[in-house]
Amino acid sequence: MQPRCSDTIIRLDIEADLLSNVLLEMEPDGVVVVCDTHTRELCLPHLLSRLGSYTPEVITIEPGEQNKSLETISLLWDRFYHLNLSRKTVVILLGGGSLLDIGGFAASTFKRGMPCINVPTTILAAVDAAVGGKRGFNFNETKNIIGSFYPSSYVGLDPGFFRTLPLTEKLSGWAEILKHALLEPDRKALIELLKEDRQPETLSLQEWGNLISRSIRTKQRIVEEDPYENGVRQMLNLGHTFGHAVEADMLHNRKKELPHGFAVAAGIIMELYLSFKLLGFPQELLTKVCYYIRDTYPVVPFNCKAYNTLIAYMEQDKKNRGKVISAALLKDIGLYAYGTPLSPTLCKEAMDFYRDLYNT
Amino acid sequence: MQPRCSDTIIRLDIEADLLSNVLLEMEPDGVVVVCDTHTRELCLPHLLSRLGSYTPEVITIEPGEQNKSLETISLLWDRFYHLNLSRKTVVILLGGGSLLDIGGFAASTFKRGMPCINVPTTILAAVDAAVGGKRGFNFNETKNIIGSFYPSSYVGLDPGFFRTLPLTEKLSGWAEILKHALLEPDRKALIELLKEDRQPETLSLQEWGNLISRSIRTKQRIVEEDPYENGVRQMLNLGHTFGHAVEADMLHNRKKELPHGFAVAAGIIMELYLSFKLLGFPQELLTKVCYYIRDTYPVVPFNCKAYNTLIAYMEQDKKNRGKVISAALLKDIGLYAYGTPLSPTLCKEAMDFYRDLYNT
Repeated sequence: MQPRCSDTIIRLDIEADLLSNVLLEMEPDGVVVVCDTHTRELCLPHLLSRLGSYTPEVITIEPGEQNKSLETISLLWDRFYHLNLSRKTVVILLGGGSLLDIGGFAASTFKRGMPCINVPTTILAAVDAAVGGKRGFNFNETKNIIGSFYPSSYVGLDPGFFRTLPLTEKLSGWAEILKHALLEPDRKALIELLKEDRQPETLSLQEWGNLISRSIRTKQRIVEEDPYENGVRQMLNLGHTFGHAVEADMLHNRKKELPHGFAVAAGIIMELYLSFKLLGFPQELLTKVCYYIRDTYPVVPFNCKAYNTLIAYMEQDKKNRGKVISAALLKDIGLYAYGTPLSPTLCKEAMDFYRDLYNT
Repeated sequence: MQPRCSDTIIRLDIEADLLSNVLLEMEPDGVVVVCDTHTRELCLPHLLSRLGSYTPEVITIEPGEQNKSLETISLLWDRFYHLNLSRKTVVILLGGGSLLDIGGFAASTFKRGMPCINVPTTILAAVDAAVGGKRGFNFNETKNIIGSFYPSSYVGLDPGFFRTLPLTEKLSGWAEILKHALLEPDRKALIELLKEDRQPETLSLQEWGNLISRSIRTKQRIVEEDPYENGVRQMLNLGHTFGHAVEADMLHNRKKELPHGFAVAAGIIMELYLSFKLLGFPQELLTKVCYYIRDTYPVVPFNCKAYNTLIAYMEQDKKNRGKVISAALLKDIGLYAYGTPLSPTLCKEAMDFYRDLYNT
């Protein structure tokens, strides 16, 4: 049972029975939940109360990006094997982006694919990993370098899970929402976001739900146009060419996990700078977004000695053709220029711009 | 670049330039060949002479089913990584079924998928693994339990590679050709195969080429109808429910690699017996096919003490729903009954039938 359509979103906060109805419709021969030690404690009881008569097996893995590894994949395959799961078993993935990525990859490859329901428990995961079918794990210190395209059958969205998120987590999701707003041809979404009274710390759950739903729609529109990322889907990597590099550098060379959205926010600054420099992205918008990010996100610390390391990470980016770094830039808000080649010199200039902005 | 259509067959023996033309059309940023120590020696020079101006990197793995393991997958990912391959690099897979399976899985998951060209070097691989997009490797002693659906862009068929195959290999491929003939509604293909003057050892390369092309067409017709095996594609598993079990038993409990086709031939006997017993498959055809197989293939030795082990392997079959063994049987030649549930008692009866036939 390989799902080919893109993910259908169901709002669990609005209709409580939806999830058990969806399961009834899918006619699984069993249900298994994959969660991590955090979501097991904080989110699993609530999820279980939504499953009607289904009593799933529960598999718990360690949380975090550093566990998105071959070892965890092997462990998941081994658990699936010993539970004797079949291609008709539904796998519910309950967690943040890392869990959806690695749990989804394991599910997509066990017996060549079991149907999945993504239940994101962070805002970041809701607007990013939960939609669009990208699965994967890290290998040789390179993020998501092994993976598959495998959409979930459903995404169960419950803003209730976001209630207890620390501000760091909310900010991390906010950066992806900001990225999606930059990809909307209409400036309205962006202007709304940058308003002073609409800060991540002050939104109600209802407001989060609506904001996330809108953000997901932007992503879905782009994914449906180009599910296997041969073209326009590359735009979803805005901020990620540099973002992934600083994220990998922090993780492997400083042994510190940088929240993904913080890395993306830094990446957006560097990539909007290059959009301005190479493609005439409006300077006033560049300034507005960069100041907003600077005032909202802490600096990602790196100095000029790290430049070559960062560039080496960028040369491994999946979007590249050969070794030439390729970035998804913007001519203007909603005006796409994916596949823009970047020289190491240009990359360094963008890093200088970032450090100047933060005065480091 | 994710290929969604099914594989296009190109006959390399008929048009020598086809492969280099296909590469030109695909516009890769590089070409890499994955082969094993056998095909590197016997087939690679010929392949390289067909690539026009492309000079590929060559990755060599150890041959055989026992190397279709997580270790080999890791090694391939690691080589792809260090060669800095991109999603625009074409991977040519040169080898038998195991190599196409594992090399294809590695390619399908590195950077979420590089385009592949399958070049099967055995008859078995040409009619089986090379077509239909199934990739995978063995895990926890279970064949192909981890995998993906990932069709190649092209299949390069050159019967010249089959010239030096030992009779065992030819017989192994012949069993899959026999299986495809049983899936053709028209009895002609089967009657042709069972003729006394059409034995695997006497065919010319030209005759093999035509026979294989016909057999591939049967498989393609079924795969196109149901690429993700939710229904009719299960019929391609005729002979494989029991076949995989005896193959796994030989490999893991007797440390002996049984040629895949020999296992399938044994499986066809047991599954046609059940087709006769449960679904009224014509007795005269059952007899004809079973005697033919008995006179052509050596016995797969197992006694009644092995029955429960074999059944345990069958319970892990990907076609199952829960633990109930599900087989692809025939009401008549070309008349399908996939998803037929089998009790352990019935399975044992079929094994008795097989052993009686061979008098063991």
